[in-house]
Formats: sequence, C-alpha cells, structure tokens
Amino acid sequence: MIYFDNSATTRCSDAAVEIMKECLQINYGNPSSLHKMGYKGKDYLKESREAIAAILKCQPKEIYFTSGGTEGNNLAIKGAVEAKKRLGNHIITTKIEHASVLNPIKALEKDGFEVTYIGTDENGIIDLNELKEAIRKDTIFVSIMMVNNEIGSVQPIKEAAKLVKQANPEIIFHTDCIQAFGKMAIIPKKLDIDILTVSGHKIHGPKGSGFIYIKDKVRLVPQILGGGHESGMRSGTENVPAIAGLGVAAKEAYENLDLNRSHMYAMRARLIDGLKKIDGVTINGCEDENSAPHIVSVSIMGNRTKAQVMLNALQDSYDIYVSAGSACSSNKPAISETLKAIGLKKDLLERTIRFSFCPENTFDEVDSAIAALTELVPMMVL
Amino acid sequence: MIYFDNSATTRCSDAAVEIMKECLQINYGNPSSLHKMGYKGKDYLKESREAIAAILKCQPKEIYFTSGGTEGNNLAIKGAVEAKKRLGNHIITTKIEHASVLNPIKALEKDGFEVTYIGTDENGIIDLNELKEAIRKDTIFVSIMMVNNEIGSVQPIKEAAKLVKQANPEIIFHTDCIQAFGKMAIIPKKLDIDILTVSGHKIHGPKGSGFIYIKDKVRLVPQILGGGHESGMRSGTENVPAIAGLGVAAKEAYENLDLNRSHMYAMRARLIDGLKKIDGVTINGCEDENSAPHIVSVSIMGNRTKAQVMLNALQDSYDIYVSAGSACSSNKPAISETLKAIGLKKDLLERTIRFSFCPENTFDEVDSAIAALTELVPMMVL
Repeated sequence: MIYFDNSATTRCSDAAVEIMKECLQINYGNPSSLHKMGYKGKDYLKESREAIAAILKCQPKEIYFTSGGTEGNNLAIKGAVEAKKRLGNHIITTKIEHASVLNPIKALEKDGFEVTYIGTDENGIIDLNELKEAIRKDTIFVSIMMVNNEIGSVQPIKEAAKLVKQANPEIIFHTDCIQAFGKMAIIPKKLDIDILTVSGHKIHGPKGSGFIYIKDKVRLVPQILGGGHESGMRSGTENVPAIAGLGVAAKEAYENLDLNRSHMYAMRARLIDGLKKIDGVTINGCEDENSAPHIVSVSIMGNRTKAQVMLNALQDSYDIYVSAGSACSSNKPAISETLKAIGLKKDLLERTIRFSFCPENTFDEVDSAIAALTELVPMMVL
Repeated sequence: MIYFDNSATTRCSDAAVEIMKECLQINYGNPSSLHKMGYKGKDYLKESREAIAAILKCQPKEIYFTSGGTEGNNLAIKGAVEAKKRLGNHIITTKIEHASVLNPIKALEKDGFEVTYIGTDENGIIDLNELKEAIRKDTIFVSIMMVNNEIGSVQPIKEAAKLVKQANPEIIFHTDCIQAFGKMAIIPKKLDIDILTVSGHKIHGPKGSGFIYIKDKVRLVPQILGGGHESGMRSGTENVPAIAGLGVAAKEAYENLDLNRSHMYAMRARLIDGLKKIDGVTINGCEDENSAPHIVSVSIMGNRTKAQVMLNALQDSYDIYVSAGSACSSNKPAISETLKAIGLKKDLLERTIRFSFCPENTFDEVDSAIAALTELVPMMVL
C-alpha cells in the first residue's frame, strides 16, 4: 500500500501508541484524583504541555488540550467572538478555510454578526491589501488558516497578523494551524498570533487529540462547561492517553523538522515534475516553498478523470491511496470552495485529486505514483 | 494496589486496547476518506454504533459519538434548550447533578432561563411530587441523573420521565447515565428518555470516548460545527480508536451484566457491613438496590478524619486508592452539593470518602479495606 492521504489522517507513531498503552492500562488514574494514580495521570499532561510549549516557544499555561482540530476551531472562534462581542460585530476570514472554521463563522453570521470573506490569488494566497481594506472599526476577530488543506498554500500569517494588530490591537487574530503544525516552525509570539489550533492525528498522533494555543491574557469564553479542567477552558476528564500521544508525536515531528521538510519538499518536486509531463495534468497552487511540503493538488482534464474515478483506479490497480477533495467533509463530495477561490475552471473542480505526504513516504512510492498516472491518464482522458 | 476509584476512571480493558491499536496503526484511515482505508475506518464506527444500539435496544442512528461525558452533557443540555427555546424559558434539574450538567445549566440561567433545582431525601433520591409541582407551562427541558456519582443513589427515572411527558410531551427529558451505563439495563424507549449521556472511561473503555442517545425525531442544535460528522450533530474526524474501544468495552460490560452486578452488590454489602462495625463510620445513601452496585459513600466522624487525610493514609499505609469527593472537579476540593442535599451534617461534609468498584475487584480487596479502616479510624478519630 502507498498511502498518500496523510492530510486526511496519519498512522499513529509507535512511540505515541506506546505511551498511550501505558496511560490506558498502567497509569490510568484520573488526573483530578487526589492520590498517586491521579498525580501520575497529571504528570503526563504536564509533560505533554511542556513539550508543546517548547516547540511553540510559549508558556505551558498557554496550551489547552481539546478533542481535536474541529473542537479547537469552534472554541477559538465562538469563544473569542463571545468574549469580544461588546466591542463590535464584524468578523474577517477567507474563502478557503476548512469547514470547522467556516461553519462556526457562518453560524455567527446567522446570529447577526457581519462577516467579510476575503479571496485569494490563483495560487491560493490571500491579498494583504484586501485584508487591510476589510478591517473596520467594529472588527473583533480575524481567522486565517496557515496552510490550506487542499492545495497547501501557505498564507502570509505574520504580515496579516501585523496588519490586523496595527489597525487595532484589540482584534483577536486566530489561525488554523492544523495542516501547518509539524510541517514548519511556528512561534506564535513572533507571528503576532493570539490563538492557534492544532490537531494530533495529522502529525502521527492519535485521533481525538489536539490543542489550542491561547496567548496569555487573551480571554475566551469556554464552550464546554463542567468540572473546570484545562483551567476552566475545556471541562471533561482529560484524555490522558491521547494527550500523552500527542505530546510524543509533536516532539517527534519537531525533532526532525528540517529533515522531514527537505524530504517532503523533494518528494513534492519529484511528483510535480513527473506529473507535469503527462498531458492533461495541471498542478494547483505554488510549486515552490509558498506551498507546504506535504500537499500536491492535481487536476486532470479528461472525459473519465473525475476525482472519485481516478481515486478508485489508483487504489484498485496500484494500491495507491489519495484523496478526492479534502476528506474532511464526512462523505459529502461537495464542490471545493478552495478550488473555486483559486479560479479553477468548472470542469476541473471535480477533476482534482490530492496527494499528501508524510516523512515516511519514499521516492520509490512517488515514482510508483508517477508511473501509475502516466499509464492511467491517457486511458482516462479519452 | 487496591484500586477503589472506578467511578473516577477505570483501567482500559485488554480487548478495548487491542482494537484501539488496530485502529491507530493498521486500519488508521479517516472514515471520511472515499477509499478502502476510509471505508475500513467507517466499519469500526458502524460496528460500535450497532453494538451500543443493541445494548440500549434502540436504532443505531440514535447513537452519536462524543469526546466524553462532559461534552455529551453540554451537547444534550445546550443543544436541546436551544432547539426548544421558542416554546418556553424554564428548565428543571436536581441539586445533585454532576458539574457537567449543573454548569451548563447555570450558564443558561445566566442567559435568562429560569431553573428549578429539585432536592432529594436523606438517601439522595428525588421526590416525584416535588418534580411534578416544578413542571410549568413554559418548562422545556428536564435533566435528572440516573445514578449519582458520589453516593450511588438511583433515581426513579422511569416515573420521573413519565410524569414529565404526561404533563407535556414537548418537554425534553435528559438523563446523565455516566455512572449508570454498564451497571444496569437501560432501555431508553421503555423509560421515556429523550436523551441520555454516556462516558467510555467509566466502563473500562478509553478516556476521550462517549456517546449520547438522541431519540429519533428529537431535535438538538449541534454545538461543534464543521464537516458534518455524526449526521451533523458533532463535527470533527471521528475518533475511530476510542469509538471502537468504547464499543468493545460496552459489549463486555453488558455481556456479563448480571454477573458483574451481583459481584459488585456482594462486595458493596460486605464493605458496608464491615465498615459499620467501626465507631464513627456512617454510610451515605441507600444500602439496598436503590443504590448502584459500585459506589459506597462513607463518612467518618473524628478529629483527623478529613477526606484527604484518610485518602492519604489509605494510600500510603495500605496502597488502597479511594476518592475524596467525586474526583471530577479538577482538583478543586469544593464542598459537595450532593452531600449537602442529603442533609449531611456540616462536620461530615469534608469527612466523606468514596469507594467505587469495578467487577475485577475482589472480596479480598474489600476485606483489606475493612481491615485498614478498622485499624486506621480509631487512631484518626482521637
């Protein structure tokens, strides 16, 4: 099997599974229990929080564990807007956000908030001038993803955040880092970020894990209430195994960051080079480092090149697993807002597949994918 | 080690860990991915949902997976109240609910809803007449827990729900079954329940797992928005390993339900009998089957019998792990509302510890606990 769907989800790392087993069956205490079994559980939380804080160069108390990226984005958006609503009624985001950002924002729009959705160029990069012009006196919240999950475009987050903060330091700047974390250095303080969201299962951590960074002194209204866990920001018995696994996976990702990036960029370049030689194939988004290292979006013009058909052919004949769309929309193969935003021709919207790498993928696998499509596409184009 | 803190959390079962490993590292696909790896992931969800539906004798589509009991209670409460708010402004609950029920309801109270908190008798059982009198024309939601987490009292849920539905079938009846599931048969349709909440880690499933049952046709407003997972009720990539582990643990609990109940009731009776012989010791709640089989709440009058002191002594000298309070309140040893509600004397409020069993506990362990307290208490009473 050649698994090129790592932006949908990844295989959990051996070390993460190892520590999870330990938490599930040996040190399984509830961190709120006031005895040794509880304290041991608490230690895993502390260790994971510190490991992540070291990666982001922030304080451990700025890290709040969640059940994943979607919960994190919901908490960031609803929590910040609720906290700031007395100051204004306007939200800015982009047209290419993930559903876990767009849908909470659309719900706020229904509730009466005004929302500006800024567009992108043909490579999926936002226009900073458009952002600047969108900022109003009553803007309270801006959410711009760091790496797009469908085409891999990397947004100028530092410049965007600076611009927002210069206009009004009271505006909360949030960035969905679910596809960025583990793929690039992220120092929220240097980037002027107030809140960022991360998911564990995209970086070889367990599903059901994630965290949000909330800058010290930035206030959010908690969305899940109860026993006051995570400093009151997210109640519920802490998912110790998942949190411990996430910490281990995050450490692994960042210990080898340069190595991993180089290898994934090299695979990316090789795949793009190989695929571009095939008639009818185009690559979406930037080919250089304005794209993340792990995502390659490929459109294939032809009569029988619809994404699901290509995906099936790659799977059935070559045991290669790719994605049709972003795989995050629970089986609803809706037309991609991202692909529309970059101005992809109508025909190609449903003829686009995504390859997404992890560091364990190999050049041989890339070559197999090139060979497969070189064989397949001419048959499907007709 | 003698672990008597199973109502705080349990050791994850071997079979649950086995299937989790399979989902984490072999069949790790995203259930939303439209390829075989995704379909395999989806199969685990289907299997777990069907296993749970078989236990509750409901339809699989009435089961929605969550990240745990607290999220489940929040979704049930906020989701139902939001869906019904046009019909009224009044909520009924009890004084002895878990924080994950009380705190969302208190937040709604702050937002303008009126709340009636009904009390209990000295055994922690609600008065049905008080409930009946509390129901108003504008009541839209009632939440009554099935088993209290601190003293184990079992509420007359069937009678309560019937009463509520007779008064007005439009009222949503919710019950927090976090301490009840796995300990007794629960057939929501027979009990007139609209929504019930369950957590996985209380029944030897993994932390970070849980579900809510929502009766077909009952509408809730989803609280976490995104890709539309769980039929739109709870977005976010499904936590396949945890969901699969939960399904296995639930099956294990119910395959041996009678056996487990008998054994836990026998341990409970033995512990109560042993402890009652010690001067200064009283048992809170019912001693018969109006209490759940797994919880024993013990108050010890004495100068040095504060809960944390007793807990430490049991741990340090006997390697016995019990709970001071309910262990769900994130290290805040607040005075228990439940113990206040049953009219416990002020002195005893902070002199109460909880034993909670799982079926793997043994009579020998119970005897060790009796021996330990028989030795300890006279020293601490002075």
